[in-house]
Amino acid sequence: MAPFRIGLLGRGTVGEAFRELIGERATQIEHLTGRAPEIVGILTRTEGSFDEILERSELIVELIGGVDDAYDYIRRALDSGRHVVTANKQLLSRRGEELWTLARERGVHLGFEAAVAGAVPVIRVLRESLAGAHIERIHGIVNGTTNYILSEMTRTGSSYDEALAQAQALGYAEADPTDDVGGADAAAKMAILARFAFDAEVQIDDVRYDGIAGITGDDIAYARELGLSLKLIGTAERLAGGISVRVHPTFLNRGHPLASVNGSFNAVTVESAAITEITMSGPGAGGSQTASAVLGDVVAAIAGAPTPAPVPAKVPIVEDVVSSFYVHMELDDQPGVLAQIAGVFGEAGASIKSVVQRGTGERVQLMMVTHPLPRSGLDGALVAIAALPFVRSPPRAISVIDEEFE
Amino acid sequence: MAPFRIGLLGRGTVGEAFRELIGERATQIEHLTGRAPEIVGILTRTEGSFDEILERSELIVELIGGVDDAYDYIRRALDSGRHVVTANKQLLSRRGEELWTLARERGVHLGFEAAVAGAVPVIRVLRESLAGAHIERIHGIVNGTTNYILSEMTRTGSSYDEALAQAQALGYAEADPTDDVGGADAAAKMAILARFAFDAEVQIDDVRYDGIAGITGDDIAYARELGLSLKLIGTAERLAGGISVRVHPTFLNRGHPLASVNGSFNAVTVESAAITEITMSGPGAGGSQTASAVLGDVVAAIAGAPTPAPVPAKVPIVEDVVSSFYVHMELDDQPGVLAQIAGVFGEAGASIKSVVQRGTGERVQLMMVTHPLPRSGLDGALVAIAALPFVRSPPRAISVIDEEFE
Repeated sequence: MAPFRIGLLGRGTVGEAFRELIGERATQIEHLTGRAPEIVGILTRTEGSFDEILERSELIVELIGGVDDAYDYIRRALDSGRHVVTANKQLLSRRGEELWTLARERGVHLGFEAAVAGAVPVIRVLRESLAGAHIERIHGIVNGTTNYILSEMTRTGSSYDEALAQAQALGYAEADPTDDVGGADAAAKMAILARFAFDAEVQIDDVRYDGIAGITGDDIAYARELGLSLKLIGTAERLAGGISVRVHPTFLNRGHPLASVNGSFNAVTVESAAITEITMSGPGAGGSQTASAVLGDVVAAIAGAPTPAPVPAKVPIVEDVVSSFYVHMELDDQPGVLAQIAGVFGEAGASIKSVVQRGTGERVQLMMVTHPLPRSGLDGALVAIAALPFVRSPPRAISVIDEEFE
Repeated sequence: MAPFRIGLLGRGTVGEAFRELIGERATQIEHLTGRAPEIVGILTRTEGSFDEILERSELIVELIGGVDDAYDYIRRALDSGRHVVTANKQLLSRRGEELWTLARERGVHLGFEAAVAGAVPVIRVLRESLAGAHIERIHGIVNGTTNYILSEMTRTGSSYDEALAQAQALGYAEADPTDDVGGADAAAKMAILARFAFDAEVQIDDVRYDGIAGITGDDIAYARELGLSLKLIGTAERLAGGISVRVHPTFLNRGHPLASVNGSFNAVTVESAAITEITMSGPGAGGSQTASAVLGDVVAAIAGAPTPAPVPAKVPIVEDVVSSFYVHMELDDQPGVLAQIAGVFGEAGASIKSVVQRGTGERVQLMMVTHPLPRSGLDGALVAIAALPFVRSPPRAISVIDEEFE
């Protein structure tokens, strides 16, 4: 049968790896699907015409990134009846619904496995294997840069700045790491996961997120002492009244399936009453890993893959989520300070699970873990604590996932 | 649109869970696929007519187990143009190729996600996400009963018999546990995984397997002391000259993704140069988990799922695989015994990585780990060692997966 004609937009690391993979795997794919994929045109910053490539292609692979140009290309490709495969999480977390709707209307495939967790096939599992399941919660380590940095800080005792520099030297972090370390990259991925886990419209604006730049050696030392792991965790869950999607540094207890996921790996845990929980992990990025996910979507498009159903309605986003929290404070060591702090938490409705104090004399570190309370209650308590005269710097809070505390 | 009509064969734990799940999820599935699934007939040992149910159904769910009757029902269903979903690993590991061929010829879907690793969607990931990948190796914990028993022996120090009785009391092991503890169940699942990982015909007769009944407290204590995990591991890998598929007790080092999979959970690691490795884990059995996997296949059949491509050819099975081994020996403690044993291994071409001796006086335990050698060389060495006059019982060997040793 005639080759399956692919137009490739972008020729960076992933694009090159995809070209190589197509060369290596075309014969096997022809065996499986009846048609061998072939790249018929490549658009780079300096070469190629999108219109000419579109004209010749049955499927467009979009790997140029960014939002505006990529949106325009994908929209035009879908509109003219071409399948599209993209790794563009920022675009999909902003304008995905519009593009999925267009794909559905035109009866073409819009694949995006590579946009979330690299080679870990979480999108396909959510959309197909778990299509009949009622998913209650997803926890994910969906950013390899931050997981690498936190793993290095834990493993070697290095500071955040040292671990970031190391990640940059090894190619795990970009020269401008803002999107990764600030949590925006993970937030975009969690928005996409939540969209398909809950069959509800979710965009990046619905995701509260926080990054890892404020994590200190104290926090890591505390985690090590208590056998906890400190990770940047994305959470998407159903709650009374709606759903919550959020990303922030989190302590996990040792038994949690994500606690032992180290280095630049990604992992996602999906919970549902019918399946209990399943966990998938693997390399979250890298040229050949992402290219492999793109190729899986290309094969699905050749074989005929389903397009997403429309979302029934917008589901409310719950902002005030209940969790246990670790709170880190720097204090002057005076008689009665612990009682006053405990009093503030008591007024916020939070009881204290454990307290660790470090240092003596003028400046001490006080680290507490609370029993579960609403985030709004915690935020109120943090403001009240910051105003106490013996508190030396703004207190910091990190949520805790630990069945023993809950 | 009209309901999607399902005939259900079998009404045990999984059948009942599937009936319940269909009731709960029909509306969501109709939203996703356009058609709501509906059970139009159930065949039990005492009630129902297969011919009548077949006549009314578009898809048959086979959950009766066993080989002969199940084969006959599935063949007739496919032959008459019905989709089939089954959890029957023993049947598929014996006569799967014939049934997949029939499904392909009739243009219908034969789903079997539930046959391997319960709710862990490893079949779909292999067949779809990794359809374009060149898979080099799979390691799997694919039997929950044996993983539960080994986990309990490790956790509590109980004997094999005690842990088995505990597993039976909790419903993790059947009254007759032979298929599970002897390795036949895991071997059937590995044959199916290897078929789709390597796109090669593999049947259960191609799988060498061994169970866990011979595992003793000594082995577990040794593992704990060295920070290793003892698991029943299925391996399917490409080797020079063909493939190898095998199941046997194996020591894993702490860093291996399967080392921390405990209790009745299943997990599978897939290795390929392009993706490095991905790991999937979750509950391996249980009524609602298996029913959930069946439902995923039903949804795929409604939505239109691909049928397996024919296998290009039978690939040779490599019998003599290279591995590191732990060897457990019971000896009279005489001068020179270690030298004689080391000499036997040396003649077999195996150098010794480490030696631990326990006990003194007449009867001592000697535990060695070898550097990698072919299984045939090990088997020869074990025969020679058994014949030494100071050896008190047949030596036992367990393979070791430990990057530090290799």
